[in-house]
Amino acid sequence: MTRASAAMQADAILLAAEGEQAELYARLLRARFGAQRVRVWPQQGEPLSEIGYACVWKAPHGLPARCPNLKAIFNLGAGADHLLADPVLPDVPVVRAVHRDLSMRVSEYVVLHVLMVHRRQRLYDAQQREGVWQVHAQPGANEMTVGIMGLGHIGQHAAGLLRALGFNVVGWSRTQKSVPGVETFHGDAGLDAFLARTEILVCLLPATPQTEGLLNLALLRKLRRDGAAGGAFLINAGRGRVQVDADIVAALEEGALAGAALDVFPVEPLPADSPLWRHPRVTVTPHNAGDIAPEILVEEIARQIARCERGLPLENTIDRTRGY
Amino acid sequence: MTRASAAMQADAILLAAEGEQAELYARLLRARFGAQRVRVWPQQGEPLSEIGYACVWKAPHGLPARCPNLKAIFNLGAGADHLLADPVLPDVPVVRAVHRDLSMRVSEYVVLHVLMVHRRQRLYDAQQREGVWQVHAQPGANEMTVGIMGLGHIGQHAAGLLRALGFNVVGWSRTQKSVPGVETFHGDAGLDAFLARTEILVCLLPATPQTEGLLNLALLRKLRRDGAAGGAFLINAGRGRVQVDADIVAALEEGALAGAALDVFPVEPLPADSPLWRHPRVTVTPHNAGDIAPEILVEEIARQIARCERGLPLENTIDRTRGY
Repeated sequence: MTRASAAMQADAILLAAEGEQAELYARLLRARFGAQRVRVWPQQGEPLSEIGYACVWKAPHGLPARCPNLKAIFNLGAGADHLLADPVLPDVPVVRAVHRDLSMRVSEYVVLHVLMVHRRQRLYDAQQREGVWQVHAQPGANEMTVGIMGLGHIGQHAAGLLRALGFNVVGWSRTQKSVPGVETFHGDAGLDAFLARTEILVCLLPATPQTEGLLNLALLRKLRRDGAAGGAFLINAGRGRVQVDADIVAALEEGALAGAALDVFPVEPLPADSPLWRHPRVTVTPHNAGDIAPEILVEEIARQIARCERGLPLENTIDRTRGY
Repeated sequence: MTRASAAMQADAILLAAEGEQAELYARLLRARFGAQRVRVWPQQGEPLSEIGYACVWKAPHGLPARCPNLKAIFNLGAGADHLLADPVLPDVPVVRAVHRDLSMRVSEYVVLHVLMVHRRQRLYDAQQREGVWQVHAQPGANEMTVGIMGLGHIGQHAAGLLRALGFNVVGWSRTQKSVPGVETFHGDAGLDAFLARTEILVCLLPATPQTEGLLNLALLRKLRRDGAAGGAFLINAGRGRVQVDADIVAALEEGALAGAALDVFPVEPLPADSPLWRHPRVTVTPHNAGDIAPEILVEEIARQIARCERGLPLENTIDRTRGY
């Protein structure tokens, strides 16, 4: 058999996923593509020459390179930093987990935590614990400015919902973008002006060498504190490596930040000794903002594989030079 | 002076308001209409023949009747039940505090508390207190149904925002209404079908003899408990007299309700011995969902007085037979 004919026949689907959902993905892929066609790593060992498509989440580095006839890699989550850090990643298209459903879910998280800040829910929670009935002044959403870092699918969707709720929304991205109703800033040159306008900072940035550690004390000190929100707030529903946990604690202590809602952390699960767990002005969630329903993602993978088999280009592929 | 000419000259504005915002209203009205024209009860005593307009919030019953030349009453809050309970209320137009700003604020409250249910924020709060990092299955908003009771300005606005977030929305009102994208039910005949569809019940009803005590155990038992929300939830941002506190506690205990967010109560402030204060699945807020900015309401009152002076009919007046 020539290499060309082997590649023709390489249409098996490899699942190499870490975490609680791995079994669910195996079941869904088998139901969608037939049990014969789906191979689960590490139960499925070498050889991997029949593998045409790999569905991965935090798979071992080097594994895709051992599939000689690989045509595409599907990442089972929004963040591709682990995958792209593979030093021997084959030169095949890497498809992001992009779907309207994922944008909706992250947007829900963003809207929930922006509203918790805006409506002072943590203050009212504390009052309830003490049995205190007291109304506090409530500024309008239109008096408050939310700044979104990262204006991809998810950022633009969240911006639209926050606009519908009446908030002023400004946005920042690496390259220039135009979003209806949103004043946008870009690049290093636009960052300080964006931060000076922003009272509630929503980070949706990918983890890349450029964004690693970006949310540090120096940056947080540049947020607007004297606006209607009564201080500056951080919501990170992007990637953990973009933030510096110790700097967030320091910013809270010195008053640069009034509160934070964090879904992601440089080390996950968040270590038990992290002061973030018990900080009274921090909400910690276990990286659940952007869960995409596995059922939906498997349908999306099937749609893209069908495109590939018809000779059409794959959609939502990652630009490796950008890192997202 | 004839009665007709006295009425012509009766253009003074009486402020009779209870609560923390009374002083702010006095300042705003004086700034808008001039100090000469504004009279504050009870500092301003009899006679009240110069009063043409009364701005009231929980004013003493009988006070409007003592203004012989009154042309209109402006209610300074969304609920008019206290005012309409005045047995000698003069037969002049009563204007509701309706404004887009008020709808926005109540909608914020509704969206916040629907998202807290949907995203299981109270479960994640409890996990954070225990230092537990665990992700739970997250259904999509489109798998969940929110039912809104009361489809006036505020209910329709909230429905639109919940639809934009992806929720299924059904609605119930006393009389038949049509709301885009919302399956509507009405009247006694439609109530059970509405409740059987509803997992998260949002009450925005006014307090009238018909709605008093409507949210009782029998009604709460009819909510859908076996849907994606994992139980039935109540959010009351309407009027407190519509709910029966003891029945809500009973519904939580027997499982008819999985949780509640309550902004209003039959007795306010909520008494210190109410079990709602410390119930682990209840969020209590101090009747702050629907605060309208006094600055905006005073501008709205000025707009309506100008209409009255030009001989135009007042807008957003209360139908006394309906009670709202």
